[in-house]
Amino acid sequence: MTNSTALKTSVCILGSGPAGIVVGNILLQNGIDCIIADRYNREEIYTKARAGVLESTTVDLLKKHGLADTIFQNGYTHDTCEFRYPDYSVVFDYGKLADGDVHYIYPQSDLNDDLIQRYLDAGGKLLLRHEGKKITQTDDGVIVECYDKDGDTTITIHADFVAGCDGYHGISRQSIPDGAVDIYTKQHPYGWLAILAYAPPSAKHVIYGLHHDGFGAHMPRNSKISRYYLQVSLDDELKNWPDQRIWSTLAKRLAKKGWTLKEGEIFDKRILSMRSYVMEPLQYQRLLIAGDAGHIITPCGGKGLNLAVQDAGILGEVLVSYYQEKRDISYLKRYSEIRLPYIWRAQEFSCSMLHMLHKSEEKDVDNVRFFNKLSESKLKQLSTSVTFARDFARNYVGII
Amino acid sequence: MTNSTALKTSVCILGSGPAGIVVGNILLQNGIDCIIADRYNREEIYTKARAGVLESTTVDLLKKHGLADTIFQNGYTHDTCEFRYPDYSVVFDYGKLADGDVHYIYPQSDLNDDLIQRYLDAGGKLLLRHEGKKITQTDDGVIVECYDKDGDTTITIHADFVAGCDGYHGISRQSIPDGAVDIYTKQHPYGWLAILAYAPPSAKHVIYGLHHDGFGAHMPRNSKISRYYLQVSLDDELKNWPDQRIWSTLAKRLAKKGWTLKEGEIFDKRILSMRSYVMEPLQYQRLLIAGDAGHIITPCGGKGLNLAVQDAGILGEVLVSYYQEKRDISYLKRYSEIRLPYIWRAQEFSCSMLHMLHKSEEKDVDNVRFFNKLSESKLKQLSTSVTFARDFARNYVGII
Repeated sequence: MTNSTALKTSVCILGSGPAGIVVGNILLQNGIDCIIADRYNREEIYTKARAGVLESTTVDLLKKHGLADTIFQNGYTHDTCEFRYPDYSVVFDYGKLADGDVHYIYPQSDLNDDLIQRYLDAGGKLLLRHEGKKITQTDDGVIVECYDKDGDTTITIHADFVAGCDGYHGISRQSIPDGAVDIYTKQHPYGWLAILAYAPPSAKHVIYGLHHDGFGAHMPRNSKISRYYLQVSLDDELKNWPDQRIWSTLAKRLAKKGWTLKEGEIFDKRILSMRSYVMEPLQYQRLLIAGDAGHIITPCGGKGLNLAVQDAGILGEVLVSYYQEKRDISYLKRYSEIRLPYIWRAQEFSCSMLHMLHKSEEKDVDNVRFFNKLSESKLKQLSTSVTFARDFARNYVGII
Repeated sequence: MTNSTALKTSVCILGSGPAGIVVGNILLQNGIDCIIADRYNREEIYTKARAGVLESTTVDLLKKHGLADTIFQNGYTHDTCEFRYPDYSVVFDYGKLADGDVHYIYPQSDLNDDLIQRYLDAGGKLLLRHEGKKITQTDDGVIVECYDKDGDTTITIHADFVAGCDGYHGISRQSIPDGAVDIYTKQHPYGWLAILAYAPPSAKHVIYGLHHDGFGAHMPRNSKISRYYLQVSLDDELKNWPDQRIWSTLAKRLAKKGWTLKEGEIFDKRILSMRSYVMEPLQYQRLLIAGDAGHIITPCGGKGLNLAVQDAGILGEVLVSYYQEKRDISYLKRYSEIRLPYIWRAQEFSCSMLHMLHKSEEKDVDNVRFFNKLSESKLKQLSTSVTFARDFARNYVGII
């Protein structure tokens, strides 16, 4: 039997992933009351996260809000990556090309959990295993209904605003009526087989393998865990990829004389469809959308986690100003106005990089051959054109 | 009745357009015997040419060979262009972004005719109205048969090499057996209505109009002649474009408050299909291909004339070294090896610019909307990203 509890707060945050937990921490630091509700428990949240590359701009933002300590303590930095062709390889010194900026490598799981702990330590209210079920907008607020999975109860949260940080499949995005926002979407003709393995890094940096069979990648996460990608057909299936085939294909696509791929137990294996999605604006009345709930980006370029944290940084700051400076609700529009140009730049970069790294999947043979030559030319420009190398490095390490 | 004359030379050059005439001048200056044959007379050659934007790199190359005097005397320079949107406009200062390099604006007709005159003054052999009909390769040379249109005679030229500078429709390209070289080709989904008019420039620089109806452009040539482009469907026809419709459409797509389009008599009007073509290598035995005979590039970015002259510069230099340094025939391979990376960079730039300036012509509505947002984002980066602006400026003013 379901009974009901009513809570009241200034900002109800749906989702305690990177976007939600950063908004929560910023609000809390600034004395603005909030409640975070997440459909999962802490362990589930930990194991769901798979990214781990933080842009310099993301780390700067977290640092500004005092949220980057554990990254500096436990993460490490990358300022080079490697492009490997069957017959040669190029180490791309993007840190130097981007005036010394670097990537921080720190698993999203750990970062997210650190920030949850920090939020709780500061007295933040977090409702775990509470799933957002309904958002009702009223003249002067919102009512969010959450289902408490353990108590079999419905909690009603009355708030001024909802920060919709509950991902693509969450209630926030779904609660927006058709036509109320503009939706832009693109299905790219590429699939990636993505794995996580208990394997130490096989190189100190990211490796992109440009093999005529397709793209492959090696992404170190920490001393024990590594991530790998293999380009596969969109209609490929996991059953076609037993572990041994994955390791031998990776070894082939990433091959370099004298280099050995370090294998390990694969603990996560999935086929990702390369897909893009953007909502404009990232707001519907009193619902403000951040992270995957408002935009999906391909994993190419590692921007998804970064966009989520950057959204949250701006959303947190805009909400703080709204309350502290007693602004009108129209002030909140600036959240979208600030974020969307960056989101589109990231989308554009990710799509360009996707095209650069992949063999064409078009049907027309002439188009495929021409496209592949253009991609090849673009890749070569990383070595031959200092202006292109600088632009790529800048966008790769952190769009500014 | 046809009779026959036999001539002998070191290099037979087919075509006296920008590629052929530059090769001819370089060979002549270095004491290497050559004969140029062109299917047209001088007036026809003059009126056929329509380009007029010279990259800094092209002018540097011509200057190195003492062929740039008339450009400096009669041409002028551009270092800005303008992107106009219905509601605002941006002047793009590409000269400054490319460390002071500039475009030289000088009609191709004039440049070509100057270089023909120079070649003739230096005693160069030029057979006008002589159309290449057959190229026969032998163990130690080539035999080129040309039809003398006025004399109704066939001339046979025995040479060590043929420089195939006779364009896409010339005998050089056609004489290469199927499969002997790799061909890369792409038909882009865009058409341009291109006109030349006796109209003074309506602005001192190139204007790109980014209108929701489609792209438009204003390209000053000299004080009396201007070039204009309008994006049209690939299947559009000239009969749909009476002069008055052209002027009113240009005025709409290029509109800016306080600005007036200066009209004039349209003396050339055609629909260009955006098409790319590259041959690899630019050589078949003793036939060396330069300019449009070896590659077609879209007019977007103004690279066609520049590639032709740059091809000719390298081809001329390689041939001079071959003779002066008594090299083996395999030495000539370096012509293609040097040129092809630049040709592909130009193709890549032209395609990127084409996509940036055009509304998508794809059928899938989602893809169109997404693509247009990416193009919009890229265009905005000309103002918001200094690294992209520098890279674009560098490629625009002269790929190095």
